[in-house]
Amino acid sequence: MTSPPHGMAMINAFDPAAATALSPRERAMVERRQRLLGPAYRLFYENPLHLVRGEGAWLFDAEGRRYLDCYNNVASLGHAHPRVVEAIAAQAARLNTHTRYLHDTVLDLAEALLATLPPALGPGTGHVMFTCTGSEANDLALRIARAHTGGEGIVVTALAYHGVTASLAELSPSLGEGVPLGRHVATVPAPDAYRGGPDMPARFAADIAAAFAGLARHGIRPCALLVDTMFTSDGVFPDPAGFLAEAAAAARAAGALFIADEVQPGFGRTGGMWGFERHGAEPDIVTMGKPMGNGHPVAGLAIRPELLERFGSRARYFNTFGGNPVSAAAALAVLHVLRDEALPANAATIGTRLLAGLRSLATRHEILGDVRGAGLSIGAELVQDLATKEPATAETTRIVNALRERGVLISASGPGANILKIRPPLCLSAEQADLFLDTLDAVL
Amino acid sequence: MTSPPHGMAMINAFDPAAATALSPRERAMVERRQRLLGPAYRLFYENPLHLVRGEGAWLFDAEGRRYLDCYNNVASLGHAHPRVVEAIAAQAARLNTHTRYLHDTVLDLAEALLATLPPALGPGTGHVMFTCTGSEANDLALRIARAHTGGEGIVVTALAYHGVTASLAELSPSLGEGVPLGRHVATVPAPDAYRGGPDMPARFAADIAAAFAGLARHGIRPCALLVDTMFTSDGVFPDPAGFLAEAAAAARAAGALFIADEVQPGFGRTGGMWGFERHGAEPDIVTMGKPMGNGHPVAGLAIRPELLERFGSRARYFNTFGGNPVSAAAALAVLHVLRDEALPANAATIGTRLLAGLRSLATRHEILGDVRGAGLSIGAELVQDLATKEPATAETTRIVNALRERGVLISASGPGANILKIRPPLCLSAEQADLFLDTLDAVL
Repeated sequence: MTSPPHGMAMINAFDPAAATALSPRERAMVERRQRLLGPAYRLFYENPLHLVRGEGAWLFDAEGRRYLDCYNNVASLGHAHPRVVEAIAAQAARLNTHTRYLHDTVLDLAEALLATLPPALGPGTGHVMFTCTGSEANDLALRIARAHTGGEGIVVTALAYHGVTASLAELSPSLGEGVPLGRHVATVPAPDAYRGGPDMPARFAADIAAAFAGLARHGIRPCALLVDTMFTSDGVFPDPAGFLAEAAAAARAAGALFIADEVQPGFGRTGGMWGFERHGAEPDIVTMGKPMGNGHPVAGLAIRPELLERFGSRARYFNTFGGNPVSAAAALAVLHVLRDEALPANAATIGTRLLAGLRSLATRHEILGDVRGAGLSIGAELVQDLATKEPATAETTRIVNALRERGVLISASGPGANILKIRPPLCLSAEQADLFLDTLDAVL
Repeated sequence: MTSPPHGMAMINAFDPAAATALSPRERAMVERRQRLLGPAYRLFYENPLHLVRGEGAWLFDAEGRRYLDCYNNVASLGHAHPRVVEAIAAQAARLNTHTRYLHDTVLDLAEALLATLPPALGPGTGHVMFTCTGSEANDLALRIARAHTGGEGIVVTALAYHGVTASLAELSPSLGEGVPLGRHVATVPAPDAYRGGPDMPARFAADIAAAFAGLARHGIRPCALLVDTMFTSDGVFPDPAGFLAEAAAAARAAGALFIADEVQPGFGRTGGMWGFERHGAEPDIVTMGKPMGNGHPVAGLAIRPELLERFGSRARYFNTFGGNPVSAAAALAVLHVLRDEALPANAATIGTRLLAGLRSLATRHEILGDVRGAGLSIGAELVQDLATKEPATAETTRIVNALRERGVLISASGPGANILKIRPPLCLSAEQADLFLDTLDAVL
């Protein structure tokens, strides 16, 4: 459970040597876990959490202590949302087979998803394919993009994370230097408006063009620009809205597809349904996952049909659990709850409140170098000095752990491990947002 | 929805042009599906099934007609098993997070799985890692095997299927000629005792040795022999018990690991817990999936810990949904039901009854060239002529569809698409087995 000797350690990873307050029970669980699950697993925090129950934005540990969840972007409707639980339980009790039999729910789901997408991908036009995880969705998107373009060259950002399959690990630099990048993969600096200044959008697009040109110089033809549309693992970079359209245009000019990885930003987190919407960008393929089933393993992609023709003529696709009646029922319930509880709008409202609160804190706490976000995907960058912007890495770790000790859960990201990653459930109330801000104020 | 122009068509795939009895409702569903899901999806049968409910070994269509399920190897305890449904519903209503917090259930599951495995992988020794799908499990196994061996060379059988990620599609020849094999992949003929005669085991081992030698001649160092231990997609090849140990020894002698893909044979299907047990073979890595959650997306692998050291020292592994509390509860319930209902023993008993019944049918129906199996993983090979063994391909399609019209579900496999694939739920009763045999008799 120690840090890997090669490359970057995981941010906010538990290190047994540094634990300050593990109970005997939890120490035994940590040891049992190490023995059973082996060396590739990591826990969060100096003192790992032993959670047993969740409800809305609250999580409860084994001692009954409650934590305000401002981190987990999977149970995005709130933990254990009753309508999703009921949909899963009812369908599991009735039938769970697969997509080689006819079933209405997977089609209802596909139709409901397409209704949220732009015209080129949308109802009456786009296709949807189902997988179980965001990794499988990105992996499939790349298989399809390779078949369509005939190229292999992929451009990602410097600290991108797109999944854990073999083909995605080699284009996910955030996994650390122990995991080599593919020879067909080029990275570009993240679109960092805080450090990059006003010409960031033009430079980001130029970097993408140069990356594809560099690949071509090595005989590697273009395949796709693949980005998380909130650049979550790079450090949360939403602004200025519109820069992603410019980046996508640069990729298309190079002959590559633009794949929007919406596994983290999608399903209302940014205040709209999809992260690319704010930018006016129109992806060729949209991949989705994490919050899609509010915890149930369901994921997939939407695609312009002409891009699927070549893949579909050569290969069939079957994913045993992908799009099964239970997964489809879970995902359909999520879409209904998002609509009925107007959660994207709540994410926009509460996100604005959090950003304003954080900016107000920044006037009193000089460590808060930058605050940025869209909806409930928020980054707050901690620096040693407002002029040099030197990352306040050790302080960030202390703050994340101090918040945990005071009952608030967040984490951090970015190359300097100094960017607070704030991603509460979309149901967060104004009072809960204020509790987060007050606790952070006290910790700072 | 037509057959792909490149390479092998899928066995038992629906072709709209050949449909004989689609109701207007189902025709509309087929069209809606084509429009929404696109060209890479396939349905089963000349007349696709529209299923709405399942219970035990029975499936029910939208008109209330019932079908005896002798095909689906996922809902292996029986469809909608109440104990699994209850475990999922209870845990989903309580908490569904991930493996970066401490939770008992994933550890209980890991311990219970290790207790079913041989000593080198077993309790107190082996590690377990969790994914959502068998594809993710095989993909992870190969990442780990590459890290451990430093090699890339993989040997699989001629019609192997190991998953749909990019790295598995290129070593799954059963996906058809439209999906290219990797340059680091070599195939060997399936271990076909029916066509291969008594020296098959020695030849199979020799073929594996030659395949690794051929890879080495091209500078590709050995990584792993990866086989489904029942060779399900190759045509179901269980005998003679023991041949797999000889094959594994050949792989190890070449410096490769032996990975047992138990995604289809595992969890009691063969009458024992794992398919490799009958052979006295001891895998280095065991991958598992399909029936592990009786339909819930949960999968994983077990591994000898020394093989995980290098991967674990360089890379961390996190799968958002893998090993979450709900998936762990589902898989733990499956293990409890397997034990409490003695399903592996039932699979052995009913499997023996089915094999005897099929062999009796073979004395009256000359088309039944060979009958083989272990537990409830059974293959019955249909031939034009008992001497030449020429595959009865067209007849196999007719029989699979005729059984479906008479309310019994199976499919077919093998290079000649002439091997009936018979894989009922492990709870199949003697009466249901006899119903299958009687219906097949009538159809033949």
